[in-house]
Amino acid sequence: MNAPPFSHTIRVRYAETDGQGVVFNAHWLTYFDETCTRFVESWGFGNNFWISQFDVMLVKAVLEWSGPARFDDWINIDVEPTRIGTKSFEVRYRASVDGRPACDAVITYVAIKPGTNNSVELPDAVRDVLTDRLS
Amino acid sequence: MNAPPFSHTIRVRYAETDGQGVVFNAHWLTYFDETCTRFVESWGFGNNFWISQFDVMLVKAVLEWSGPARFDDWINIDVEPTRIGTKSFEVRYRASVDGRPACDAVITYVAIKPGTNNSVELPDAVRDVLTDRLS
Amino acid sequence: MNAPPFSHTIRVRYAETDGQGVVFNAHWLTYFDETCTRFVESWGFGNNFWISQFDVMLVKAVLEWSGPARFDDWINIDVEPTRIGTKSFEVRYRASVDGRPACDAVITYVAIKPGTNNSVELPDAVRDVLTDRLS
Amino acid sequence: MNAPPFSHTIRVRYAETDGQGVVFNAHWLTYFDETCTRFVESWGFGNNFWISQFDVMLVKAVLEWSGPARFDDWINIDVEPTRIGTKSFEVRYRASVDGRPACDAVITYVAIKPGTNNSVELPDAVRDVLTDRLS
Repeated sequence: MNAPPFSHTIRVRYAETDGQGVVFNAHWLTYFDETCTRFVESWGFGNNFWISQFDVMLVKAVLEWSGPARFDDWINIDVEPTRIGTKSFEVRYRASVDGRPACDAVITYVAIKPGTNNSVELPDAVRDVLTDRLS
Repeated sequence: MNAPPFSHTIRVRYAETDGQGVVFNAHWLTYFDETCTRFVESWGFGNNFWISQFDVMLVKAVLEWSGPARFDDWINIDVEPTRIGTKSFEVRYRASVDGRPACDAVITYVAIKPGTNNSVELPDAVRDVLTDRLS
Repeated sequence: MNAPPFSHTIRVRYAETDGQGVVFNAHWLTYFDETCTRFVESWGFGNNFWISQFDVMLVKAVLEWSGPARFDDWINIDVEPTRIGTKSFEVRYRASVDGRPACDAVITYVAIKPGTNNSVELPDAVRDVLTDRLS
Repeated sequence: MNAPPFSHTIRVRYAETDGQGVVFNAHWLTYFDETCTRFVESWGFGNNFWISQFDVMLVKAVLEWSGPARFDDWINIDVEPTRIGTKSFEVRYRASVDGRPACDAVITYVAIKPGTNNSVELPDAVRDVLTDRLS
């Protein structure tokens, strides 16, 4: 990996915890979505590139939980691409609370023409930043 | 009121309850939004009218809670318009669980040109159905 | 399979769609959670059994998307257990809209002592109903 | 006002925007809930006080929208108590994006004995901090 590792921090809202006192499972996908936004922002292309030339669609997500996150916890999420295909790529998210693993996910994204469901080849610029960050 | 009263029923999802074991406050606005969709559907204009000629924007909501709703509860929500203006109207929602009041809301909607933030006069057809249902 | 197949229907709320006009990815886990509640309810043990003797925790979820669901769509979700272990079991959810596949998921649940994170063996009664419904 | 003014900043998640491209109305209550948590944290009592001796329940919320917030917007929320009663108090939230007003709310909270729905008198310590921050 030539680029510095990327991580993002999220604080758990009360509204996101359920009757068991822990983050409800679906919110983890929202956390990873927010983290992906910040990860892509860190590439430095600006909003215009993203909106006009590149968008993505989720095609697969594999989540594994190993511990809870509770109200007001700070969740640290480490991010790295793990596979780069022609039209798709995979990103791994490792979420932990105070160093304890909480939830890991591997999400597969397909590049699409913005405003459509049509898959397209990854732009070279995107392929380059992903390659620089590959584990 | 010349039209029959309208009510809608919603079942509480586990994901919507919080650490106090009750529906988190914000979800009540979602419940009333779903109820509004079904209320408007009951007018019989079809989706095309709604999307092409009429849309609304919330400008005010007053919510008052008097009791909890819990996981798996059935919430009954009675709906009626309470004021009809030139460009806006108010709807009152009375939510109860097993006959016990839970949350009342009065929400003010402004008619807008679909796809914009520009307020417009209420279409006559909308004014008529609201008038028939006025309390 | 000796028991009749189980399916559940969910209508998409406006609040659950995003700027792409489709159900935001995280809400699918909420839909499957609601579906699991109804599936377990269909076993006929009553709430008391569930709360006092048996609870579950998600340990893994694999989601694959093949098509969108939009505002007001009816989502049909077919449910069946696909694996029964000593302390855990897997359930497959197949969600479709108007017969078109939208999202499939396999979710792994671990049985826990209610109010704790401690895994326990599946109660015999639960094992029996799952076995009757195994694909 | 003897204490410094309090404000909190929230960044809009993609998942919180709807088909109109703006924050869905219900999420504003979640934003104000998160803001309230940070406001109370700023009083310096620590989590233990809050959990063991003091909790609140919403009884009323009045929200007024004057402009949209969109994906990735930074929302600034100014907070101040506006009324202090025996068992309840009111807090006003003024949310803006880039200096443009977006949503104002006045929320009424009732003090309760933690773990119950029983209202209690505001603890003196809470009354004091609220009084110091009264507009």
